[in-house]
Amino acid sequence: MVAMTTASTPLAIIVLAAGKGTRMKSDLHKVLHPIAGRPMIDHLMASARELTPERQVVVAGHGREQLEKALGAHAAIAVQEPQLGTGHAVQQAEAALAGFEGDVLILYGDVPFVRAGTMRAMIERLHSDDAPAVVVLGFEPEDPLQYGRILAHDDGRIAMMVEYKDASKEQRACRLCNSGLMAVKSADLFSMLAKVGNDNAQGEYYLVDVVNIATLEGRHCAVITTDDPDEVGGINSRGELAEAEARWQKKRRVQAMADGATLIAPETVFFAWDTQLGRDVTIEPNVVFGPGVTVADDVVIHAFSHLAGATLESGVEVGPYARLRPGAVLKSKSKVGNFVEVKKAVLGEGAKANHLTYLGDAEIGAGANIGAGTITCNYDGYFKHKTIIGERAFIGSNSALVAPVKIGADAIVAAGSAVTRDVADGELRMVRGDQLVKPGWADRFHDAMKKKKAEQDK
Amino acid sequence: MVAMTTASTPLAIIVLAAGKGTRMKSDLHKVLHPIAGRPMIDHLMASARELTPERQVVVAGHGREQLEKALGAHAAIAVQEPQLGTGHAVQQAEAALAGFEGDVLILYGDVPFVRAGTMRAMIERLHSDDAPAVVVLGFEPEDPLQYGRILAHDDGRIAMMVEYKDASKEQRACRLCNSGLMAVKSADLFSMLAKVGNDNAQGEYYLVDVVNIATLEGRHCAVITTDDPDEVGGINSRGELAEAEARWQKKRRVQAMADGATLIAPETVFFAWDTQLGRDVTIEPNVVFGPGVTVADDVVIHAFSHLAGATLESGVEVGPYARLRPGAVLKSKSKVGNFVEVKKAVLGEGAKANHLTYLGDAEIGAGANIGAGTITCNYDGYFKHKTIIGERAFIGSNSALVAPVKIGADAIVAAGSAVTRDVADGELRMVRGDQLVKPGWADRFHDAMKKKKAEQDK
Amino acid sequence: MVAMTTASTPLAIIVLAAGKGTRMKSDLHKVLHPIAGRPMIDHLMASARELTPERQVVVAGHGREQLEKALGAHAAIAVQEPQLGTGHAVQQAEAALAGFEGDVLILYGDVPFVRAGTMRAMIERLHSDDAPAVVVLGFEPEDPLQYGRILAHDDGRIAMMVEYKDASKEQRACRLCNSGLMAVKSADLFSMLAKVGNDNAQGEYYLVDVVNIATLEGRHCAVITTDDPDEVGGINSRGELAEAEARWQKKRRVQAMADGATLIAPETVFFAWDTQLGRDVTIEPNVVFGPGVTVADDVVIHAFSHLAGATLESGVEVGPYARLRPGAVLKSKSKVGNFVEVKKAVLGEGAKANHLTYLGDAEIGAGANIGAGTITCNYDGYFKHKTIIGERAFIGSNSALVAPVKIGADAIVAAGSAVTRDVADGELRMVRGDQLVKPGWADRFHDAMKKKKAEQDK
Repeated sequence: MVAMTTASTPLAIIVLAAGKGTRMKSDLHKVLHPIAGRPMIDHLMASARELTPERQVVVAGHGREQLEKALGAHAAIAVQEPQLGTGHAVQQAEAALAGFEGDVLILYGDVPFVRAGTMRAMIERLHSDDAPAVVVLGFEPEDPLQYGRILAHDDGRIAMMVEYKDASKEQRACRLCNSGLMAVKSADLFSMLAKVGNDNAQGEYYLVDVVNIATLEGRHCAVITTDDPDEVGGINSRGELAEAEARWQKKRRVQAMADGATLIAPETVFFAWDTQLGRDVTIEPNVVFGPGVTVADDVVIHAFSHLAGATLESGVEVGPYARLRPGAVLKSKSKVGNFVEVKKAVLGEGAKANHLTYLGDAEIGAGANIGAGTITCNYDGYFKHKTIIGERAFIGSNSALVAPVKIGADAIVAAGSAVTRDVADGELRMVRGDQLVKPGWADRFHDAMKKKKAEQDK
Repeated sequence: MVAMTTASTPLAIIVLAAGKGTRMKSDLHKVLHPIAGRPMIDHLMASARELTPERQVVVAGHGREQLEKALGAHAAIAVQEPQLGTGHAVQQAEAALAGFEGDVLILYGDVPFVRAGTMRAMIERLHSDDAPAVVVLGFEPEDPLQYGRILAHDDGRIAMMVEYKDASKEQRACRLCNSGLMAVKSADLFSMLAKVGNDNAQGEYYLVDVVNIATLEGRHCAVITTDDPDEVGGINSRGELAEAEARWQKKRRVQAMADGATLIAPETVFFAWDTQLGRDVTIEPNVVFGPGVTVADDVVIHAFSHLAGATLESGVEVGPYARLRPGAVLKSKSKVGNFVEVKKAVLGEGAKANHLTYLGDAEIGAGANIGAGTITCNYDGYFKHKTIIGERAFIGSNSALVAPVKIGADAIVAAGSAVTRDVADGELRMVRGDQLVKPGWADRFHDAMKKKKAEQDK
Repeated sequence: MVAMTTASTPLAIIVLAAGKGTRMKSDLHKVLHPIAGRPMIDHLMASARELTPERQVVVAGHGREQLEKALGAHAAIAVQEPQLGTGHAVQQAEAALAGFEGDVLILYGDVPFVRAGTMRAMIERLHSDDAPAVVVLGFEPEDPLQYGRILAHDDGRIAMMVEYKDASKEQRACRLCNSGLMAVKSADLFSMLAKVGNDNAQGEYYLVDVVNIATLEGRHCAVITTDDPDEVGGINSRGELAEAEARWQKKRRVQAMADGATLIAPETVFFAWDTQLGRDVTIEPNVVFGPGVTVADDVVIHAFSHLAGATLESGVEVGPYARLRPGAVLKSKSKVGNFVEVKKAVLGEGAKANHLTYLGDAEIGAGANIGAGTITCNYDGYFKHKTIIGERAFIGSNSALVAPVKIGADAIVAAGSAVTRDVADGELRMVRGDQLVKPGWADRFHDAMKKKKAEQDK
């Protein structure tokens, strides 16, 4: 089938998202439930945007305020109220497409992993020289029992579409199923939809009926088939959400390894949709990535680390038990060790914070050494303040740096100090009470307490 | 088969737990090994208790002291010494059932996941109008090779029971196997057992022989079949223990998702037997629940959290790396962050302890902010003491609150303070040495140390 | 086939490791990528050493400096430059085997899990009374498609070896494949190799051609077949590396459970190659072992713990979130709790460090209690120093012990103290500023801040 050029034809996408999502048992709109840290509808919209659509309409019902907030200016929202079927839902997009002339791609917010290439193939098929009125996306699931069947000729022309319950035994033996996705020209779409009736058991207007209407009008429709049935898998429950997440993660892990990362136990590493990994990155078991993480070459991420919004330059080593939060920037060869939290803080080249530390709203100079138990006190209950630590500074263990405060280059803060005023370059700052010595006091205390305990145990 | 009413017939259960459990290689009694945080025998006893048995007898051999301690007053312990087979084991329960007249259900401590419904069905079958002498629970495993076979008529009447090694090829083709579980009237049980002999290769008295004895006496026995072969799976090794745990966890995760919890990676979440989850609860990867946790609606549990005996009210957010121990009560919208341990402590509504903190034996008022690195010093080496923190109090980072101590409402503790005396409402408490400033000291120290290092490296 | 005694025949092993490992996308030599914490080639060399070879030659190409450094004096390195095929690679070992007379076993650095027993069987077959010129190791993979086939008689004599692409349909139906491993007498090896040509599509010298050469010379070759196809699995990508790791871990977990350890969720526990576990050890979900860990009986390792180079004596309890690093020695019944790091430190019998603590370069006496938030300040930026804590000493929470320092037996350090000088036995040491009390100050601060915030929000 020769595809005619489609580059010049404008495209609109309609995303149906008016379902109630009852089986999710959630106050959050079904299509906003995240997979790999990103709302499922955003996965779909991002793929659709690769086709540079001129217009994007999301048809919402229940929970449309949440959708409006989440989608922002990216898409127009059309409201379907009440919900009278998929055909009725698409009709609600008509106003938002006023004046639009071109191709329309109909997608589903809860079928988020349709690839851009598949969408493109649908559009191309619509423009192929046999000019079908409608292009339907078919798939061949392992177990096709519950789906409507597409009976098609070898060239993809649809002979008949039939609901499972209406299908004969022979028809059921056909494994080509209807995904519900559709490409159709705008000029055809709404005129055909106007002819769709609701004379069926549910009293609903079904989108799929446009295929029958086109056929009755002497036109033909075509099907193209995805080679990956997972692509059109719908998500209707938290169980299916978890399965979709698992499929996504599995693919991403395989890709990460193929690109040159070692995942000792791939099944225990969880990526976000936008995680970027360099070459010769080693990831130990049990690492979780939130969105916004970039990892350069030769980085080691030890077990039990949790990263989000962090940038790790080459040669960095983190964890185990490193918690990197948004704004953490770890310059080349810096180190963040166990039980250390970093938020909105830059660690200079080769700087180290190895143990039990909180670094928030901070700039730490190259080569600085942050002792165990150091806390940047960045919050006074009302405002956040900044801590600046100079190059090669040495912060003794168990120190509290009360921001705003600046520690100079090569300065030393003695262990256990609460520093409230700036420390100059090369200066020692020590904040410490006198060493009170009470010889024998502990012995007397032990005696008294043992006595008390013995009395209580009587 | 019409079931006669059984409500009025008293029930006794006999749980066999005298096996040596050699393959466990453990000093802990086999039936006390926990699954989902609960000894396996307790799972069984809890199911049996749904039938409100009048008497419960556990037949113990090796390690009966452990059993007595674990079961407490819940069950009588009968001792089998020496161990001469399952029939002999059941006979040891006769004394504990003295005076009892009714139904007897024979269970196995290492077959812990028999459902109450299955037990009930066995009893009901015993009372059905064909009045079998014995009801046996059968199952159809995927691989039935090693089990004894039950040859039965379509109505469940047993034609013959045959050990695998004695079975003909045709008999082996039958897939209905004997689980060993049995329901029988007390009046029949011990009279039949008295006739069981030990004229076999092992020289043991086999419980299953009562079926043959009943048949010889002109009575008939019946089998009912469980639709879930896992239900009668015995646990004889740590490998089987792990498999039983895995099966339990899998079911529980599916249930949690069906009930409205999001499990991003269900296979990494481990529940306890009594975990309670609300709706719209999100659980990130790698969360472990010990017993006694209740989670309300709209709670988020971030990765790598470990909870036991904790109560989380609605809107609470914990983790990553939150460690909640027994007695942790997190009131509505409170927050416990990374590397924070909470034990026997109440966090008031909206209170926060976000980083590197230990809260033990404490009451924290609504809206209080516990700074990073705060420690409640609740132990003096002999006794535990309490810390009480008022509403909206602000505890500066790296502070030590030496209990017993009370911090007032709206009070502020300065960073790095060790507070040993009560702080009044609205008061500032600061415990801090003077800021000792030594200009150039650090520079001189660096010079000296570099010199020393260079000398050592020579 | 009767094996002749081989005990007296000297053995040399040649390990081919000259492949570029392009698919690994790594700067690290392929055979140095670790599995279970040990470079893959070391797994192989360790198995081979069970046969006490007289010489060990590794043939290296690309990255041989890394190999030299990693292997040290354990093996001679022969260099193959350029790389002209496996036959050519083996030839490069000739110089290193000068003067050697005996059996030669040819192994592959990226086929690391060949068992010593299999190697031994190859050598024994070489010495069996039909005296084959070459013994090849065959295997029967589930999917044999891409491998060269071995057509053999029932007695193991090889009729023909054929590359997959040259094989007929009948030959492809044979499932016995060539692993590439070979045993051959040194006297035969290099004379036959000298006759191998490179008249093939790749222009390479293939080791397998020695079989054809031997046959042409009227000798016969034999195949023995491993019963475990995984044994000869090659590792060519990070994906295959992860699969090999997974297979190794699975076997190790099964072994651990069979030996008497409880693994609640075996799939979440990661062992190192040399982890040693006692009996009645309980390991909660998500525990990672690095190399060098020994765990005695009756130890409990709670979830999310990370151990390397640590020794845990009987009755020890660690975690959750315990980080034990090399040199951590936990004496009997000592306890290390959550968010605690221990490095090069001995915890005496019954000593406890339960929360948020760093213990480095320390000796802690029996029965000592290390309070939450304690830090041993072992590093001054240049040198490491030691902390010694006496028996039954009590270190108050949030204390910093500035090493070198010694705390006496039964001594008490008050909470929040930075201790810089030794504390005598039975002494109390308190380092603390005065309690500065500012009544109403916090109230005034709150008022001022609220005002400021309100102004900013305008």
